[in-house]
Parts: sequence; structure tokens; C-alpha cells
Amino acid sequence: MNVEYINPFLSSLVNVLSTMANTKIVPGQPRVKKDEVAQGDVSGLIGMVGPTMKGSFSVSFDESLAIEIMFRMLGEKPAGINADVTDMVGEITNMVTGGAKRILGEKGYEFSMATPIVVSGKNHTITHKCDGPTILMPFNSDFGKVHIEVSFDK
Amino acid sequence: MNVEYINPFLSSLVNVLSTMANTKIVPGQPRVKKDEVAQGDVSGLIGMVGPTMKGSFSVSFDESLAIEIMFRMLGEKPAGINADVTDMVGEITNMVTGGAKRILGEKGYEFSMATPIVVSGKNHTITHKCDGPTILMPFNSDFGKVHIEVSFDK
Repeated sequence: MNVEYINPFLSSLVNVLSTMANTKIVPGQPRVKKDEVAQGDVSGLIGMVGPTMKGSFSVSFDESLAIEIMFRMLGEKPAGINADVTDMVGEITNMVTGGAKRILGEKGYEFSMATPIVVSGKNHTITHKCDGPTILMPFNSDFGKVHIEVSFDK
Repeated sequence: MNVEYINPFLSSLVNVLSTMANTKIVPGQPRVKKDEVAQGDVSGLIGMVGPTMKGSFSVSFDESLAIEIMFRMLGEKPAGINADVTDMVGEITNMVTGGAKRILGEKGYEFSMATPIVVSGKNHTITHKCDGPTILMPFNSDFGKVHIEVSFDK
């Protein structure tokens, strides 16, 4: 696994948030996650299984950003993370992974997606338990932070 | 998806904790998860993809129980959830899903497992975003609670 795998997820997230929610996010520096702890308030996770690779993807939002995206996509502004927000985060997770899957498939990296899982809880952390390294990509926006993590077994 | 899918995960978890950590857990009533919120402090999650089905599994521990299992398996008793505990939870997630996969495979339900993901954070909640219902199975023990959730698309 190397940093090139992260780019399809990166561009897919930027694209989904821009087209679906008119929200601009600014990529930071991608890096191999070592002892670093990256926190989020609501995260979408998905497993990926291919003939020669398997792995996992996560996208973690600050609550403030998730709620702003909710407002921009659906016109609702809930007081906190509720079932509508977790539905939206699950949908974003599916769309981002689906977009990355298409790009990686064209490069010969084929995989199928499991169904997404959404975690909510203030300042939770995620660890991808993969043989390969986890690549972390942080983003900033006017409404809070979001980061993605990708890990493949090879 | 019906309750029969949960049984292989149930027996696999009971078996793994009993043989690996000499820890007895007592199953409660399995049920379809609706508006209910089930919290955990450390959870292992895994995606599953088969030719005709896909889904996700999670197992969520109270911190006290996770640390007791750690102590019984490895002789260490950390003050809180650290990298060793998340490693152990990832490993338990793999073993439980692997055990259930064998049993379900014999019944004709084939799937491949993605790599596990571990979430830590006090009182987080998990939502499986699947077309099918989520089955929730709670357990009690002398050291705290654990519950599993399973969801398949069909």
C-alpha cells in the first residue's frame, strides 16, 4: 500500500462534498498514520474485499461540519448527531468509496464494498487493523475538520 | 435476514472468550434493533462481502470487560483502552467472524471478510447501514457488558 491509493478517496470526497453539499474542503498533508490519534464525532466506515486485496476505509467528521453538510444537502439543521445525520454519513461513505472503487478499478485494483457502518460519539478514534499501513488524509473547512483513513492488506 | 444468522456469531463469541480468555458471558435476548441505542467503549467492526450477500458485524465491549479479557489473555492490566487493547479487540473480531463464516458457509451462506476496524471512545454507538434489519444480541458478564450486532443486505 502506498500513498497513491489514497488519491482516489481524496478526490472522491472533495467531489462528493462539493457537488452534493456545495461544501469546499481543503486537503492537508497525507501521511502514514503511526502513533497519531485522529478524532472525530461521527464516522462512516466500510470494508473492501477484492480477489487480491482487502482493506477498510473511514471518513470522520467534526459534529459542526457534519451538521452543516446536512443543512446544505437537506435543509435541516439538527441540534446534534441524530439518525438523519448518520444516514447521511453512511450515504457519503458509500458514494466516496464507490467513486474511489471506479478509479482504482481502472488501474487494475478491483474490490467489492461491504455495507457501511456509522459510529457516533464525541472524540472517538479509529484504528484500521490491517497488515499494511494506514494512510491518513486530513482536511479543513470553514465549519470544522474531516479526515479519511485508508488501509489495504497489500 | 433473520435471527438464525446471529447464532453462529453468538456461539463463536461465547467460544472465543471462553477458550482464549477463560471468560464466561451470559447471552440475553436477541432482537431486531430499531430505535434502541446500544453503547460501548471499544468496538471491533468488520465488513463481509459474498456473491449473493453483503453486510457488517460489530462487537462492542464495556471498557471494564475489555480490560479484564486483556488481563486474562495476556496478563496485562492497562489503566485504559490503549493500542494493546484495540489490537486484542481487532483479533477477537477476526476470530468471531471467522468462526461464524465457517458455520454459515456450511449452510450455504458464503462471504469473504474485510479487515477489522476498531473504534474507541466512551459510550459510542454504532449503526449498520444495510437494507436488511440489524440483529442485536446483548451479553452480561461479571466484568461488564458486551453486545454484538449483525446486518446483512438480504
